[in-house]
Formats: sequence, C-alpha cells, structure tokens
Amino acid sequence: MDVTELRGRDLVCTQDWAVDELEAVLDLAARMKARRYSDEDAEILRHRTFMMMFYNSSLRTRQSFEAAASELGGHAQFLEPSKLRIKTKTSSGEVLRDTAKVMSRYACGIGIRILEDSVEAYGDGDAFLREFAELADVPVVSMAHDKFHPCQGLADVLGMRERLGDTRGKTLLQIWGYSPMVRSWSSVQESLLVNSRLGMNVRLAFPEGYDLDPDVIGRTKANCDAAGVDFEITHEQEEAYDGVDVVYSRHWMHPDRYRIGREGDQKLAAENRDWRTTMERMSRTNDAVFVHPMPVDRGNEVDDDVCDSERSLLYDIAENRLHVQKAIMALTMAG
Amino acid sequence: MDVTELRGRDLVCTQDWAVDELEAVLDLAARMKARRYSDEDAEILRHRTFMMMFYNSSLRTRQSFEAAASELGGHAQFLEPSKLRIKTKTSSGEVLRDTAKVMSRYACGIGIRILEDSVEAYGDGDAFLREFAELADVPVVSMAHDKFHPCQGLADVLGMRERLGDTRGKTLLQIWGYSPMVRSWSSVQESLLVNSRLGMNVRLAFPEGYDLDPDVIGRTKANCDAAGVDFEITHEQEEAYDGVDVVYSRHWMHPDRYRIGREGDQKLAAENRDWRTTMERMSRTNDAVFVHPMPVDRGNEVDDDVCDSERSLLYDIAENRLHVQKAIMALTMAG
Amino acid sequence: MDVTELRGRDLVCTQDWAVDELEAVLDLAARMKARRYSDEDAEILRHRTFMMMFYNSSLRTRQSFEAAASELGGHAQFLEPSKLRIKTKTSSGEVLRDTAKVMSRYACGIGIRILEDSVEAYGDGDAFLREFAELADVPVVSMAHDKFHPCQGLADVLGMRERLGDTRGKTLLQIWGYSPMVRSWSSVQESLLVNSRLGMNVRLAFPEGYDLDPDVIGRTKANCDAAGVDFEITHEQEEAYDGVDVVYSRHWMHPDRYRIGREGDQKLAAENRDWRTTMERMSRTNDAVFVHPMPVDRGNEVDDDVCDSERSLLYDIAENRLHVQKAIMALTMAG
Repeated sequence: MDVTELRGRDLVCTQDWAVDELEAVLDLAARMKARRYSDEDAEILRHRTFMMMFYNSSLRTRQSFEAAASELGGHAQFLEPSKLRIKTKTSSGEVLRDTAKVMSRYACGIGIRILEDSVEAYGDGDAFLREFAELADVPVVSMAHDKFHPCQGLADVLGMRERLGDTRGKTLLQIWGYSPMVRSWSSVQESLLVNSRLGMNVRLAFPEGYDLDPDVIGRTKANCDAAGVDFEITHEQEEAYDGVDVVYSRHWMHPDRYRIGREGDQKLAAENRDWRTTMERMSRTNDAVFVHPMPVDRGNEVDDDVCDSERSLLYDIAENRLHVQKAIMALTMAG
Repeated sequence: MDVTELRGRDLVCTQDWAVDELEAVLDLAARMKARRYSDEDAEILRHRTFMMMFYNSSLRTRQSFEAAASELGGHAQFLEPSKLRIKTKTSSGEVLRDTAKVMSRYACGIGIRILEDSVEAYGDGDAFLREFAELADVPVVSMAHDKFHPCQGLADVLGMRERLGDTRGKTLLQIWGYSPMVRSWSSVQESLLVNSRLGMNVRLAFPEGYDLDPDVIGRTKANCDAAGVDFEITHEQEEAYDGVDVVYSRHWMHPDRYRIGREGDQKLAAENRDWRTTMERMSRTNDAVFVHPMPVDRGNEVDDDVCDSERSLLYDIAENRLHVQKAIMALTMAG
Repeated sequence: MDVTELRGRDLVCTQDWAVDELEAVLDLAARMKARRYSDEDAEILRHRTFMMMFYNSSLRTRQSFEAAASELGGHAQFLEPSKLRIKTKTSSGEVLRDTAKVMSRYACGIGIRILEDSVEAYGDGDAFLREFAELADVPVVSMAHDKFHPCQGLADVLGMRERLGDTRGKTLLQIWGYSPMVRSWSSVQESLLVNSRLGMNVRLAFPEGYDLDPDVIGRTKANCDAAGVDFEITHEQEEAYDGVDVVYSRHWMHPDRYRIGREGDQKLAAENRDWRTTMERMSRTNDAVFVHPMPVDRGNEVDDDVCDSERSLLYDIAENRLHVQKAIMALTMAG
C-alpha cells in the first residue's frame, strides 16, 4: 500500500480505515518501537505542533500523545477546552468553524478526547469529533470519545501480536468486569470492531442488561462474517472463558447511564460484583494472554495475580499506545 | 536598519518602537511565513525557554506563542500566575523583582497577558507589564494587556498588506460592534496606533459614550498628522462605511466597565444591538477587506456572510499572529 | 569516579549518594553552566520525556526543571496529580505500581514534588517518593518533598563555592527567620546534610521549640564528626551570626504544624517576629555571603538591603537549580 495516501486523514474509528491502512500503522508502530530514539524518526514532526484538546482529563492518553510528539521532534500542546471560549447553545463564544480553521493554521494535527461526562447523550462526542474533523484542515484523531478509541484498539492488536503472533482465527473473549468506576464503551467497542475486522473470533460476555451500541454489535457481526470467523454473545461468565486465546476484561457502563447518572450506574454494577477475572477462570482458557486498556481496577475487574502474571499484557499494551500514536502521526501529519 | 539593535528589546506597544523597527518585524514575519518549517528558522531559539504568564486565559494567544517557540526550536512554558506565589498588597509572597530576576536566568524571553478582569483599574496591567519589563533582564512582550496588544496589531498590518499591498493612504474604519462579551480595548487601541503610524487614514466609529483612552486617541491624531493622513471620529454607523478600504469591527467595553462591572456593561451594550457589520453595510465601502482579531461573536458584531466572504481576513490574520510572534522572538530573543 | 555508575539512580536525598557522586554532579553542573546552550549538551536527552508530578504547585521548581529538560534536547511534561486517577485509601483508581510501571515506559525519568499540604503526617511524602522510586524502572528525583530537597541543596553548594571557593572548614549559619508562610523543612534539612557532609562547620539557630527532624539532626552530627568539623545548636539569635562565612536564613514550620494547621503555625511564628536577617546582624559575620532558597519573604525573614547586597547569592543559587538539575538528569537519565 502507498502510505502517502494516509497524509491528511482523520482517525475517529478504525472502522473508517481500510484494513491495509490499519496494517500500515501496525507495521510502522512495530518498527518504531524497535528503533526507538533512533535518528530515523527524530525529525518526522520537526518543530511542528500537535494540539491536544482534553474535554476529559486523562493519565495515559496525555502522557503517551505528548511523548509521541516529542519523540518525533514535534511538540504537543496540552489544551483544556474548559478554558477555550467555544460557543455552546447557552453561551456566547467562538463558533467551532473558527476554532477549527485557526487551529489548522498553527497545528499539523489535532487530538480530541471527549467522553460521557462531557456530552449530553451517547453519540454526541462522536458527532462533535466528526464535525470538528470536517471543519479542520489538518488531521483530527480521537484520543478516546464516547463511542470509540482507535489508538487503544491498535495498541491492543500490536500487543496481542507481539505475544501470540498472527491472531487471525484465534479467539478473543471481551468480557465485562465489575467496577464502581463507570467506564466508557469506547475501548471495548473499538476492540470488537478492530479485532473482528482483523480476523479474530469474538466472544462478547456481560451480565444481562449491559448491552453495547447495537450498531457497533451489528458491524462487529458483519466484520466477522466478512472475515469468516465467529461472533457470539453470552451471559454465562464461567463458560465464556473456555478455550479462548485472549481475555480482555473491562468494566463498561450500563446503557441507561446517561439517564440514571454515575451513582445509579454504580448501584446497578454492584449487583454483578462476581464478574471478575480470576486465575481460576483464566485456567479454563487456552493459556490466554490478559488484556486491559488500563487503568485497571484491581480486585474488582480482575485479580492482582492475573495482572501481574507472565500472561498479562498490561504494560506492553500501555507502551504500545506510544508507538501506535507515533505511527499514526507520522503517516497522517508529517510534513 | 541593523536589526541586531532589537536584541533585548521589550515590546509593550508598537508605539514604543520606531517605524523601521516595526517594518523589520513585518518583513521578517512575511519571509518566515513563506519559508515555514525550513532549516533557516529551525534553530533560532534552539532549546531556549520562552515563559508565558497568563493572568487571563486565552485561546489563540497561547496556541500561537507556544507554536512560535516550537517552530524556532525553543520551548514555551505555559504558566498560570494564580499558581505563582507573587506578592500582592494583601498577601505574603515573592516580590516582583525576585520573580523577574530569576525568570531571566532561566528564560530567553517572557510574555505576559493581563487584561481587565485581572486588574483593579484601567492602566494597571500596562503599568505591571512595564514594571516587569524594567526588572527583567530578558525581553518582555505583551501577549495582550488592558491597554495594548502589539502582536495583534502587527498581525493585522501584515494581513492587510498581503491583500491590499501598500496600505499607506488607504482608509481604515475602526468600528464598534455589539456583543455581550465585554471586550478589551487592547486590540482596538493597538490598531489605531500602528495603522496611523504606518500611514493609513483612520475613521473611528462607535455609539456615543464608548470613548477609548483619550491619551491613545491623542497619540493616534498625532500619528496621523505626522504621516499626513486623516483622523476622524463619528457616531453615524451607516455613513462610517462609506468608501473605506478596511473594515475592522470589534466590540469594546464601555469606559465605565471597571465601575459598573461586566453585567452593567452588557446592559449598556444591549442598547446598541444594531451596531453590526452586515453585507449591506460592507457594500458602502471601497470593496473593503474585513478584519477582526478573533474570537468573533458572529451574529452580533458581524454577520456570518461577512466573516465567510472572500474579503474576510479572519484566518489569515489569526495565522499571522504566529509569524509576527516568531519574528519578534527571533529579533529580540535569539542567542 | 566512573559516572556511568549513576545511570538509572534515584535521588531522594543527597545523603543517599556517595560524596564523589555528589561531586560529579557539582562538577558537571559547573561545566554546563559555563557552556550553556552549546552543542555539547544539546542532545543529551534528545526527544526524551521527563515527567514532573506536582502534588504541590511551584514557581521555581517547575520553571527550572522544564527548562533543564528543554536545554538537554528533551521535553518535560507538567502533570498535576489531582488530575491523575491514582488510587487512595478512600477512592477507586489505579494502584501506584501500575502508574509507575507505565510512566517508566514513556519517560526517561520522573520528578515528584510532594510537600506538607499533600500528606497527612511528616514523612509520608518521603515514603511515597521512595515507594514510587522502587516501583519505577526509570530514575525518580525529588523536586522537593516533606523531608528533603536534594536539587536545592546541591544548587546551594554550587553557589557558595562560586563565591567562596572551597567551603571545607568554613562555617554555615543555618538560621530560622520569621514569616507567616509556614514553610517546609525540606530545603533546610537538605542543607544541613549536604553541607555537613562536604565538610562545613554547621551552626543551627532557631527559637526554642522549632526543632527539626531528630533523625536528620543526628545524621548531620554524624556527618560533621566524620568530616572532622563542628556542629552546634543555639537559640541565641545575635551571637549566632558571630564569625560565620555563610548565613542561610529561612523560615521553617513548627514541628506541631501537622497537628495545629497553618493558622496555628502562623500564630506561633508571630511570637518570633524579631528573628530576621539584618545588615546589622550580617556585620557580626566574617563578611558572610547570604543564602536563601527563595521565594524570600522580604521584610520578614530578611531585610531588603541584605537580599540586594553584593554578598547575596539569591539569584545565582536560583539559577544553579537549572544547572544542577541538568547535570542530575544527564548523569542518571541520558540514553
């Protein structure tokens, strides 16, 4: 594939890119990881500015994007939009078009993080990101939003491949874990889409009622069909682990979360405290690796000994965020 | 002119610099814009630190100064003085002298933004900036303060020249526009001073009562006299547009704003809701270009179709902030 | 000494390092100061990330660490842990191990500032830093914590040597000064330890009741014994100045501060308003230089004319923070 075709492209969800484009990212990320700090990558964004707009605060995402820009010779500006005077329905201020057009004059690319707590209804964050991307003249990349988290999804894939080799035909268990932390659907939905697309069998397991976005589920099924692999949904926690190659455990919020609020969601979640990845449950798998996008709620979502076992990919995948993001920036934003 | 004479110079208002010094900035800014990201400018501030002190938050100013430092090979630190322990009349803390002297040891230059909301009376911000500049051993540049905004003024000039060629002898309409946003006098006063100095006829139009600083008006008149061009003040909105080459529309606060507060000012402004730049009013001009320092309050100060017309310089001038600031930093702060 | 031995080392207190290791820092800092901005140091941290975790805000420390990283070709990320989702006794969140392990994947080193106001009891900040350093796979350096401030201590030494030459056998007066600012023990305790270790006679003077950490006092005595120099404690303010070569004046909080709070401490301090370094008191010394880690509470801790006298090392030592920190980063974190 001619990667120059990726110049100027936005990345809101991996589903928006062709498979060979995603493979180009994964391939470059792996090479950049192997040659970290080498001259080869040192000038890719030389003195260029990547702007990060955090409608929600973040630990890993800010650190990894800011480091990614630095390692490519550029600089990431950390912007908190509560301080940006952007017009809303109820306040005077600058229209989004003006913000996006001017940022495009200063920056080589723009990252946006906008999660549940910053929007009124599911999908508003995704719509905001796509509107901003449409208005901006430089690439816009999701740094996690209410629907998707493409950089996390690609970091997951890279981590699984590092340990398992080709994941095509292997089985991913995407399973709900208890936590009071009321987490976004973004990482989980991205994982369903990208891994089905890249040819993994997908088993989705959660307590009844914790359904994800039906549109994403439909697209995941279609991805599996297209790749000739299986997709199934189960509410049986124990059996879900049987024979899988990857266990991806993670809390996600209830679909009623926007209506019932954080506390209502926490109350619902508490009814499923037993949904937790344990070593015993891991023993039902095909010696599976353990995946989680972090931060982990240890003792709730998953036990300590799973996190710290030799089969845990926690830190490798967290590190891969950096490499994947460097690759995306290099392919879409380089001069 | 020998531009090495600009090494170490502060910039609080364009009026403090000689005309050929301002021309040196404009000339370098235009060249830097044309050769953006080239090797020629990449090491001018290599690994040097520019410190930005934001007493008031900002969108454009922070983005453009931080990008300017990056593009010159340096780094801009984003400092919010509410977190700096600077002594005030009512609190213990470090005296300004100590702050300025130590920052001068770390930084190659210092930018300060201090607007109405951070001072008790008009002029206090200007006085603070001049005191800080006196104490500091490195150049201090205004990033907008209660009286002036030199970087905006120079970006305006560069944008007008890009479209109109030589502006000498052409006519600038500086006109008040309605907005509830209670805006600073800084950009407008800077525009009056710099454009009169560089030889434009100046027509200043506003609803009765919205007088600006009499000292600035006096200096603008004197600038016009010296340049052999005209200065006039009018309160007739429609006629103000007749035959001008540039329309610069912008809300500014009432002179009583410090006494009556933001809400009092908004109430006063609402009496002049009809002061708005429309296409119809633009049609009275000599096919004028439209200038606004942004953020624009669309629908209040000016109509959408004016902002988005081919004669609008909005984004070009916003971009020019970057180039002008790079030129100022290069001329005053380079190693 | 083979300085490659310092690669990967943490710095929580100068007492943890061997004397020749401290000398290696001081020697490199002095050379880096002399050759500032030269090519020699420009790539030491090329495109690497240093992460600064500020549990307490800071003026000088943030500015000097961020500039240090820039001058070595790297980038310092400014992180405010209130926004980091780190688990505490009372909240869900990420365990420290996970935070430290992942940051180690992104960064070449980590700085932590955690003072009195962020911990429940004296020593908790030191324990936190040591736990974090144990978990992290990259060097961790104190940017001031409740017990120590190694970078300040080394900057002090460099400043004294610049003016006095060898300080071995000379006498340091470490004296309490009045201020309502309720300051940390960190700089003062670090000074006692490092200067006793490097062979200065130490005279510690404070109003009765303002005892420092007994363990630090014990180690200072032992350092003096090992170096063959004197250690004494006095509560006589005037006599304390007699014949000393260095006056290091600084407020420090009462040992009951954690129990009585800031206001209680301020009330206690006010009983000793006369503890202030004046020119008259300076005249009892052996033409001593004046040292203070800044910010100075002028008029309380020390008079203006002392701060601004030719014998004041205020700004030189503040500048030395930059050079010392560059040297520490270069020795422990370079690629």
